[in-house]
Amino acid sequence: LVGDPMNTAIVGVDVGGTTMAAGVVTGAGDVIVDERVPTRGDAAGDPLDAIVASVRRVTGEAERRRYTIGAIGVGVPGPVDAARGRVGEPVNHVPGLAGRPLLEELTAQVGLPTFLDNDVNALALGELMFGAGRGARSIVVLAAGTGFGAGIVLDGRLVRGTVGFGGELGHVPIRFDGPRCWCGGRGCLALYASGRGIADAARARAAGGPTAMTAQDVFRAAAHGDAVSASVVDEACQAIGAMIGTVVNGLNPEVVVITGGVARSLVPLEARIRAASAEYAFAAALAATRVVIVTGDKRLGVRGAAALALYARDLKSREIRA
Amino acid sequence: LVGDPMNTAIVGVDVGGTTMAAGVVTGAGDVIVDERVPTRGDAAGDPLDAIVASVRRVTGEAERRRYTIGAIGVGVPGPVDAARGRVGEPVNHVPGLAGRPLLEELTAQVGLPTFLDNDVNALALGELMFGAGRGARSIVVLAAGTGFGAGIVLDGRLVRGTVGFGGELGHVPIRFDGPRCWCGGRGCLALYASGRGIADAARARAAGGPTAMTAQDVFRAAAHGDAVSASVVDEACQAIGAMIGTVVNGLNPEVVVITGGVARSLVPLEARIRAASAEYAFAAALAATRVVIVTGDKRLGVRGAAALALYARDLKSREIRA
Repeated sequence: LVGDPMNTAIVGVDVGGTTMAAGVVTGAGDVIVDERVPTRGDAAGDPLDAIVASVRRVTGEAERRRYTIGAIGVGVPGPVDAARGRVGEPVNHVPGLAGRPLLEELTAQVGLPTFLDNDVNALALGELMFGAGRGARSIVVLAAGTGFGAGIVLDGRLVRGTVGFGGELGHVPIRFDGPRCWCGGRGCLALYASGRGIADAARARAAGGPTAMTAQDVFRAAAHGDAVSASVVDEACQAIGAMIGTVVNGLNPEVVVITGGVARSLVPLEARIRAASAEYAFAAALAATRVVIVTGDKRLGVRGAAALALYARDLKSREIRA
Repeated sequence: LVGDPMNTAIVGVDVGGTTMAAGVVTGAGDVIVDERVPTRGDAAGDPLDAIVASVRRVTGEAERRRYTIGAIGVGVPGPVDAARGRVGEPVNHVPGLAGRPLLEELTAQVGLPTFLDNDVNALALGELMFGAGRGARSIVVLAAGTGFGAGIVLDGRLVRGTVGFGGELGHVPIRFDGPRCWCGGRGCLALYASGRGIADAARARAAGGPTAMTAQDVFRAAAHGDAVSASVVDEACQAIGAMIGTVVNGLNPEVVVITGGVARSLVPLEARIRAASAEYAFAAALAATRVVIVTGDKRLGVRGAAALALYARDLKSREIRA
């Protein structure tokens, strides 16, 4: 980070498949400026141009308010090779980003320290620093959106993995004899608990029924007594409970957060999900874990993206001292 | 560690349900003295007495050979609260150990720095320092024995979890709609891939057949063309492949080791297991992971237990420098 720490803020950008959110975040995690724009300026646009334009707009606004921007953090869906600053072939594709040396391109254009990582990794850092995980050393964030992402921080360190796949819990098998997933895998959590998986399952089961259901429609229909939708929602709760069990038994973190676009629909089902998790997790391990559903707007993604820069600074200061 | 580093060695004790192995390990990972004794001296004996007696014997032998013992590492099955030095309620019970402040008791008796952890956590550190993970920063060890344990080291740090359940991958669901496990969970990996699970499955399917099959019998019968045994072995390979997929996609470590008492039976099935893992893991993540089957005797457990002490020393020196 550059500049006087007292009035230094961070730009955070949360890049999604169709829209992205950008904002300015203080060192205390407050989002003081934010905007949402299409990921491509127009259908043929380069998402890099849209990111840079958005960074410049929110930076300008922050500077008018006497902040100095010290760094930029960017979260994108799918695996990111953070060391090389390269976006992998994400399962949830942002057209125009996969395979690019995005970090290098961004840094060249904005001329500030820039940090790039998976969007849910960023979210996990944001929750650990400023949200549900404040004060903890370990957190797992399960983000059920259109796809299903996750972010893992253990002992204060983000689990990035050797080539950036760390935390891709949406694509681990919870049914090893299950059907093929769109990722190429089999029996993945995302088949049962992501927005896409929920909508697909309802569509497949409701033969002759409506063909363009969204996950939200499925949750709504289930709440109104539709049996097919209820069975799909029930399976989603059970699957999320199984993943909580996997995380609690396998990693035993202090905090598990369930969030993402689907999270709002899960709030009324919290007791159901908790009961399911108890079917899988060791009681002593589950008792030591705080499990919370966090609903929120795009600003959580912006805050998380900014947390990438704060995390890198903290890590660096630890290394300098070591 | 105490004493002159040049001739200092570590005592490692790997405590099992019926027998334990104790030995002396050099700083380079060589096991220079070892013995195997019953975990209880006699049926009513306290395993602590047996551990202490064994530690004294191997220490005496090492001292005759001009080594000084600098510390003692002890691995036990099941979750261990390493910070409190307390053995949890292990899934694979060592009678007389659960719930005890074993570390305190041991330290009082042997008068040397003593380190206690889960046996497969110890094995993972041993493999990382001296075995298949040499030079890597991250490793996941899957140990298929009577039960199914695992040990996870990420970024050079052991994943112990908040209350010691870190790495209990044998009891995460790989079939979320699966049957009850003896651990109280559901659809656990151990049901399909542990010695106990394999033997139970074969017994349940072979109606009217032999009732006292061991996992080894099942592997042997499968190799000789017995269809029921072959279906159980096939499921075990698929389940292990699913767990490799889970680990590779979720944690993306550099090395995955498959070991434990069942590992020798898995060697001829290696191609089958690799093919199964490719059904679940992202190709790019799997390509970056070295997956190896490690067969070996109890000395691997002894070396691992000793690695607990070396790990604690390394961690401490990092903290002192920080």
